[in-house]
Amino acid sequence: MQLDKFTDYALRVLVTLCVRAPERVSSTEIARVFGLSANHLAKVATQLAHGGFVTSERGRGGGLRLSRPAEQINIGAVVRVLKKSDPVVECFGHNASCLILPVCGLRAPLADAQEAFFASLDRYSLADVTKSQRALAALLTPAG
Amino acid sequence: MQLDKFTDYALRVLVTLCVRAPERVSSTEIARVFGLSANHLAKVATQLAHGGFVTSERGRGGGLRLSRPAEQINIGAVVRVLKKSDPVVECFGHNASCLILPVCGLRAPLADAQEAFFASLDRYSLADVTKSQRALAALLTPAG
Repeated sequence: MQLDKFTDYALRVLVTLCVRAPERVSSTEIARVFGLSANHLAKVATQLAHGGFVTSERGRGGGLRLSRPAEQINIGAVVRVLKKSDPVVECFGHNASCLILPVCGLRAPLADAQEAFFASLDRYSLADVTKSQRALAALLTPAG
Repeated sequence: MQLDKFTDYALRVLVTLCVRAPERVSSTEIARVFGLSANHLAKVATQLAHGGFVTSERGRGGGLRLSRPAEQINIGAVVRVLKKSDPVVECFGHNASCLILPVCGLRAPLADAQEAFFASLDRYSLADVTKSQRALAALLTPAG
């Protein structure tokens, strides 16, 4: 069981924006800081904007920032929104092909387990997971 | 958040062996039934044997079968054992490279969420998830 990379990267974007708020930061810069693909991070940013977690402004001085205070951004909500493209098992997705799908007794237990995973994360806000503000800022702010 | 394919396939192997018990079934046959890679399923079978969930016998008349009654095979235990090679996020694995690892506030919440996922599956045995025995057998037993 694993968090997909897309969600992992989305959480890194939110942590960065939280620590550097109210500054706008481009997805390109966040990609560089973490050593990730800029193209991939741009897609992550688009999803975060669609989910209402960040706002994005184009052009010079543009970039991303949180759409609301970190206390009001729930980690469970972020992971739930981003999981849409990533079913817990193949048979929850669009390309379900498993032979025993119609009679499988694992679907309900797996759906419950997925919900337990999300519910556990519902207990945390972005503010809760960025309490080491100073140490995070030291890592996430370019020198100079 | 998703169950990795390895665990998905392992559950399919266990369901098949449960429904066809006490018959021995080869991983090659299970691969054919589900339309999966035989090579991949052989690796899955090895892990299930290492985990003590199945026994494997080579040669003619050989194959896999459950090492104990389905009531005594816990789904949470299976998923926990197989997850070893598959960390919930990159930073729980051997190739942890995330910049903010030392001060990240997401690690404990994600570890808790993973445990909630497993704990939810701990409530089910292999017998619980294969109650549609007849319908499953019809799908998982070759004609003739």
